[in-house]
Amino acid sequence: MAVYTHVSAEALGDFLARFDRGELLSAKGIAEGVQNSNYLVETTADRFILTLYEEWTSTDDLPFFLAMLDHLAAAGNPVPRALPDRHGVAIQQLAGRAACLIEFLTGVSVSHPTPRQAHAAGAAMGRIHTDLADFAQARPNPLGADTWRPLLERCGRGVETIEPGLYDRVDTALGAVLADWPRDLPVAAIHSDLFPDNVLMLGDRVTGIIDFYFACTDIRAYDLAVMHTAWSFDAEGRRFDPAIGRALIDGYTSVAPLSVAERAALPTLAQGACLRFLLTRAWDWVNTPADALVTRKDPLAYWRRLDAYRKDDLFA
Amino acid sequence: MAVYTHVSAEALGDFLARFDRGELLSAKGIAEGVQNSNYLVETTADRFILTLYEEWTSTDDLPFFLAMLDHLAAAGNPVPRALPDRHGVAIQQLAGRAACLIEFLTGVSVSHPTPRQAHAAGAAMGRIHTDLADFAQARPNPLGADTWRPLLERCGRGVETIEPGLYDRVDTALGAVLADWPRDLPVAAIHSDLFPDNVLMLGDRVTGIIDFYFACTDIRAYDLAVMHTAWSFDAEGRRFDPAIGRALIDGYTSVAPLSVAERAALPTLAQGACLRFLLTRAWDWVNTPADALVTRKDPLAYWRRLDAYRKDDLFA
Repeated sequence: MAVYTHVSAEALGDFLARFDRGELLSAKGIAEGVQNSNYLVETTADRFILTLYEEWTSTDDLPFFLAMLDHLAAAGNPVPRALPDRHGVAIQQLAGRAACLIEFLTGVSVSHPTPRQAHAAGAAMGRIHTDLADFAQARPNPLGADTWRPLLERCGRGVETIEPGLYDRVDTALGAVLADWPRDLPVAAIHSDLFPDNVLMLGDRVTGIIDFYFACTDIRAYDLAVMHTAWSFDAEGRRFDPAIGRALIDGYTSVAPLSVAERAALPTLAQGACLRFLLTRAWDWVNTPADALVTRKDPLAYWRRLDAYRKDDLFA
Repeated sequence: MAVYTHVSAEALGDFLARFDRGELLSAKGIAEGVQNSNYLVETTADRFILTLYEEWTSTDDLPFFLAMLDHLAAAGNPVPRALPDRHGVAIQQLAGRAACLIEFLTGVSVSHPTPRQAHAAGAAMGRIHTDLADFAQARPNPLGADTWRPLLERCGRGVETIEPGLYDRVDTALGAVLADWPRDLPVAAIHSDLFPDNVLMLGDRVTGIIDFYFACTDIRAYDLAVMHTAWSFDAEGRRFDPAIGRALIDGYTSVAPLSVAERAALPTLAQGACLRFLLTRAWDWVNTPADALVTRKDPLAYWRRLDAYRKDDLFA
């Protein structure tokens, strides 16, 4: 949530001259994205998002992300394409960083989605999955199920500072989830991080699906499970809203059917999603000083969700 | 350079309903302002800046700032007015903060101004000073000359961590500047922080003068001296560019004449400006952990400028 790399107006003017997209009128650094710097740029022709990829983003994966976005945009999904310059080049260099000039999408992320909004968002994911059926490129999930135990071990006993006893409890839950982890479900390109922040809406209409930088190849129904954990609880993970959960699944299946095996696996997939976010948050927690200016997201908000999925079938 | 207060899309939609300014299409938190949270908001009618004033901004002073901006805008200066709602109210409440919906101005801040740009910016300040001649409201400068010694004392010997011997050198320089500090020059409402960041330009044309939150009543020529220290050196304060310095003064005096006494006082006023920024940067330095994510601005960049003004008459 910061602008790490400063781009001077002079450099930005020169950058825009590579494109047929008008002349610079305004540029504001925006607090969006955690691994890159973003500017909202206005030219005499249109508005754009300029993204600079910081060193810790693997720019090797950019071609995969951009190909996925182009594929989805060509099929009519509201996703932000990176625009090619006059020579057809989309991945540029600017201020010492890989950089893309990206389509601007209107819409706002809702903080408290209604069931109608959840239905629309579920349907938007269903459409994306349907349209990605013939997308051939692959990217292994760097935060997939096989990475969770090594990540817990790297966090180590430091997680006890979050809550005493947490290490062993996570370890046990992980064992149960990995033992049940489905091996035969359809695998495809997925978003894998479709939190409400990453869905732009106007009223009940989805106007944008953004932030594909966790996109990867993994179990397709896992994408829906991630969304379920992110949308149907309050931020602290204390209260499950069954109407939202149902609306997400109904919206999704109104476009993309779920097989019996996929439906049956959702509780396990959701528990896995909880572990994935619990673990990355725990990692950030133990590696971020308590007095740092960045807000640490509470790992326990995902422990509570995990607990809820273990106690009841929230997909019933 | 952060968004401290999150405004939900729902709350923002309700907020905009108080105004006749269209319906919400988009909102992005922008990395602008150090003491408040800013969003670039787009509606069906126009674009705006939404500013939320954080607790440490004295909202008691907001009426002064807004009156000054209204006065300047009415006289045709490109400054961002806070817009009144349907009931004529400009200072609103949102997300527990005082908040204003502010006109959006196009233009970009140049990092390396040319002499033509410096001339235009100097002239823009001259016009502001001329148009403020009949502005009656007053606000004492919370960072005026009489606050510098107490601020040095509050920084204390901690400034030695910036550079050994700095405390005594600043103390001596401060004594000299305060002894020469002019007491009879015209006093008026001034911007007092007109760095290149705070001037929006398109080519050689000034399209916006922004960030009036340090505006106050003080020696008018001090405002020009601040600008001179900020514009005519490189960021590290190592290299003075006489062409820029001259262009600023020429631009200013093309609109607003300087008296003989004001001209004669400029070297002292500029040294005072250097001390003001050196001291606030030193204060931030000694109170910000070295590993914090916010970039500490180098106080020595202003010590070097001070040194340059002491050695030569840079206004000759």
